[in-house]
Amino acid sequence: MSGKTNQGHFFEDYHVGLKLNHATPRTVHDGDAAMYQALYGSRFAMQSSWDFASPQSSLRNPVMDDLLVFHTVFGKTVPDVSLNAVANLGYAECRFLSSVESGDTIQAYSEVIGVKENSNGKTGIVWVRTKGFANVDRPVLEYVRWVMVKKRDAASPTPETVVPDLAKVVAPDALSVPAGLDWTRYDYTAAGEPHRLRDYTVGEVIDHVDGVTLTDAEHMMATRLWQNTAKVHFDVTAREGGKRLIYGGHIMSMARALSFNGLANAQLIAAINGGAHANPAFAGDTVRAWSEVLDTTPTNAPGVGAIRLRLVATKGGPAGALRGEDGKYLPDVLLDLDYWALMPV
Amino acid sequence: MSGKTNQGHFFEDYHVGLKLNHATPRTVHDGDAAMYQALYGSRFAMQSSWDFASPQSSLRNPVMDDLLVFHTVFGKTVPDVSLNAVANLGYAECRFLSSVESGDTIQAYSEVIGVKENSNGKTGIVWVRTKGFANVDRPVLEYVRWVMVKKRDAASPTPETVVPDLAKVVAPDALSVPAGLDWTRYDYTAAGEPHRLRDYTVGEVIDHVDGVTLTDAEHMMATRLWQNTAKVHFDVTAREGGKRLIYGGHIMSMARALSFNGLANAQLIAAINGGAHANPAFAGDTVRAWSEVLDTTPTNAPGVGAIRLRLVATKGGPAGALRGEDGKYLPDVLLDLDYWALMPV
Amino acid sequence: MSGKTNQGHFFEDYHVGLKLNHATPRTVHDGDAAMYQALYGSRFAMQSSWDFASPQSSLRNPVMDDLLVFHTVFGKTVPDVSLNAVANLGYAECRFLSSVESGDTIQAYSEVIGVKENSNGKTGIVWVRTKGFANVDRPVLEYVRWVMVKKRDAASPTPETVVPDLAKVVAPDALSVPAGLDWTRYDYTAAGEPHRLRDYTVGEVIDHVDGVTLTDAEHMMATRLWQNTAKVHFDVTAREGGKRLIYGGHIMSMARALSFNGLANAQLIAAINGGAHANPAFAGDTVRAWSEVLDTTPTNAPGVGAIRLRLVATKGGPAGALRGEDGKYLPDVLLDLDYWALMPV
Repeated sequence: MSGKTNQGHFFEDYHVGLKLNHATPRTVHDGDAAMYQALYGSRFAMQSSWDFASPQSSLRNPVMDDLLVFHTVFGKTVPDVSLNAVANLGYAECRFLSSVESGDTIQAYSEVIGVKENSNGKTGIVWVRTKGFANVDRPVLEYVRWVMVKKRDAASPTPETVVPDLAKVVAPDALSVPAGLDWTRYDYTAAGEPHRLRDYTVGEVIDHVDGVTLTDAEHMMATRLWQNTAKVHFDVTAREGGKRLIYGGHIMSMARALSFNGLANAQLIAAINGGAHANPAFAGDTVRAWSEVLDTTPTNAPGVGAIRLRLVATKGGPAGALRGEDGKYLPDVLLDLDYWALMPV
Repeated sequence: MSGKTNQGHFFEDYHVGLKLNHATPRTVHDGDAAMYQALYGSRFAMQSSWDFASPQSSLRNPVMDDLLVFHTVFGKTVPDVSLNAVANLGYAECRFLSSVESGDTIQAYSEVIGVKENSNGKTGIVWVRTKGFANVDRPVLEYVRWVMVKKRDAASPTPETVVPDLAKVVAPDALSVPAGLDWTRYDYTAAGEPHRLRDYTVGEVIDHVDGVTLTDAEHMMATRLWQNTAKVHFDVTAREGGKRLIYGGHIMSMARALSFNGLANAQLIAAINGGAHANPAFAGDTVRAWSEVLDTTPTNAPGVGAIRLRLVATKGGPAGALRGEDGKYLPDVLLDLDYWALMPV
Repeated sequence: MSGKTNQGHFFEDYHVGLKLNHATPRTVHDGDAAMYQALYGSRFAMQSSWDFASPQSSLRNPVMDDLLVFHTVFGKTVPDVSLNAVANLGYAECRFLSSVESGDTIQAYSEVIGVKENSNGKTGIVWVRTKGFANVDRPVLEYVRWVMVKKRDAASPTPETVVPDLAKVVAPDALSVPAGLDWTRYDYTAAGEPHRLRDYTVGEVIDHVDGVTLTDAEHMMATRLWQNTAKVHFDVTAREGGKRLIYGGHIMSMARALSFNGLANAQLIAAINGGAHANPAFAGDTVRAWSEVLDTTPTNAPGVGAIRLRLVATKGGPAGALRGEDGKYLPDVLLDLDYWALMPV
């Protein structure tokens, strides 16, 4: 049998400083935007309407949804980072650096910045900093992700532990606002809600009301759109229980689209401070979402502020319920995402 | 809990003359056309082929399917008109005013033209006239729709009844033909059938033969494509019975695509005279379609006529069977649509 | 009842020399590429990235996947060739003659080149040579297909048997390389694997490892994308057993996408020497794939060679297992495809 097939890397294959040039550059375009629309039903005006976006930005072409960019970059890292991952443990220091427009080609590169073998000797944690670029050299996204990966051989020597020092929150002055963005003449009627940054208060909880029952066909189409090849999303024989595990990013996009109802002016994602896929999701689950306002800040761009939000996707609990008395996520919680969005002031 | 979420309007919120500026302009493009193609499999040559369409029109870009435009405008009205609707009662005076091309941005506006409280005091009927525009000011679609909406409070005062006077049929001289359309050198071979307007006779019934068994993934993707947010289409907990109700427009598009077989030259929809969603449709139902020729008329455009058709979607009955002895729709009938299509003479 | 509906042709309707001009030209574009991406998750760099493809070709626009072109041409032939087909028996002499770019309009023409009535007197075999063109006159695809078709009337006279003489393999010097293709500065890192033509040996078997469990929504969307109208793919009542038969081309595209893992540099399909849909596939089946290297050859284009591959899709057997002791395909084998792909030398 040929040895040409990629079986994925194991814990021993990673060391701090290892650089990974991820395969398959991907040109994203209007067709992808339409698929994204069909999969999530997003209504944010900046991505929905060229007539809305172009007068208040320096975009030359329709802008891709920020999470579509995130998933595309993430998907490229899967064959090199997480094909043998036991768990996707977290994200930090994720910043969206520049708008991605229809026609841009996305590439991704990662560097290993931490390794730590687990005490069981069978698995370890790997931290990678991933950067996404458009058209070779324009940085569009940067983030740290850490995953638990199997060792190929439990007898392999234990590497020196290196745990990176990661910011809990992307600092307001590190937020990137797309060049030319000007929201001083923002059209709230077209955007769908009157609420602007000053109308939100820290601690406010927003129930996004609507729900979507998931199907296998949709999450597979989504996951393939960003060329994510993790077996568990496609092959019912890859996990016990005979069900396809839904890619966590599908839940992120679904919750973000649901959050339009109450956060219609949180138009663009500027940063992701952290995120946890608290419980697995499967076809048949009905996803709901709520948000909590964590902070607000001005930016230097005209009319543009930023709102820090906790976006929680659930399969049934009441808005605001996140953890049990034991401090653990409630069983109905699917996603806990901490992010900064840009919003007119 | 935040009060920023849209819970939809109730009967008391509407009064004759109320103007509704619907949110989220939407740029439609080739990506949407591909999704529409994948969802319905339409074969009408005007939308399928730029080489077919461009020589016989003044189109500058590929034309969007008429029903894609209808659904896009309709979807924008849902949050303001029918989020609390008990039933979608009817359509009238629907005219397609101008071709929508790839790259056009669609906006929608409505005005309340009638209100009538029901005798039970708990619900009422609201009539709205909706207009769709491309690129701010080019009218592309106009129609009247009436829905039954819940009252927020049964004790609210009963408004004065205003029932608009609506045409049973869009008059032939009110039909709009796209600028520059010329079918004097129409290619029947490329279009797929030899039958032209003069080959059809009033009263003729056409069995479109084929059937499509519906799935949940597909109707949800369709409904999201036009940003229609009605809960019942997505959330299995939103209705008794635990099934997602399929958006009536999905059945319209499915039946229209099936009607190609026998009506391949009914290329463009010029008007919808009326329509009823006779029974609900669910995943697993197999949709079939038949048409009845109701009328024909010439137009002023070279080689272009119009055919008035009754398009009926069913889940199983014989072609031609519409109503029982009691005058009610048969239980297998899903849709009864009365429309004008443009066809070469 | 109207007689305008196409009921498909029967065996008596075909005679050697009959020319069929298939309906509905189809403009393919980025939107179709995105749907194809979502349906199969292909990662071949030539179709994924404009930045990868454009420097090493004379493409003016993004290139469509070769199988998307095959399916589009094939779909056009269905109403005229295989609507009443009992079985799709084989392919031969299939050559891809020119790249199809986003925006090209595809048309298809066939000529009957063979007929043979079966001894049962109820069915016969029809051979057709089909040609696909872009933008009226640029040849893009040519292939022979033979199908078993029902007779309308068993009493019809038996035609003279004509069985065409077909090549077992498209000869290396008949392979067409896209104009301007130059792989002398090919980027193996971006493409995803280091293996080039000289690294493969005849007889080598590659297990593509991954699996995808099929859904009805996806294969219907695929099949509609290329306007293939065969009832059995859509209508659960069209076959015994109440299941939709999955279009064989869906399995071809799925297997081809899976084959990236081990054959990432087999970028373009140059020819299909033969193919058999060995067993039917249904939703719920998990598709896997393996390849066997059958031959390699240089071409005249700089840095471009060709690899002849057997691509086998299965629903579970081990890589390399194709036929039982009786010489028949194993029950788990879905597809046996013999093709030439272009690969850097």
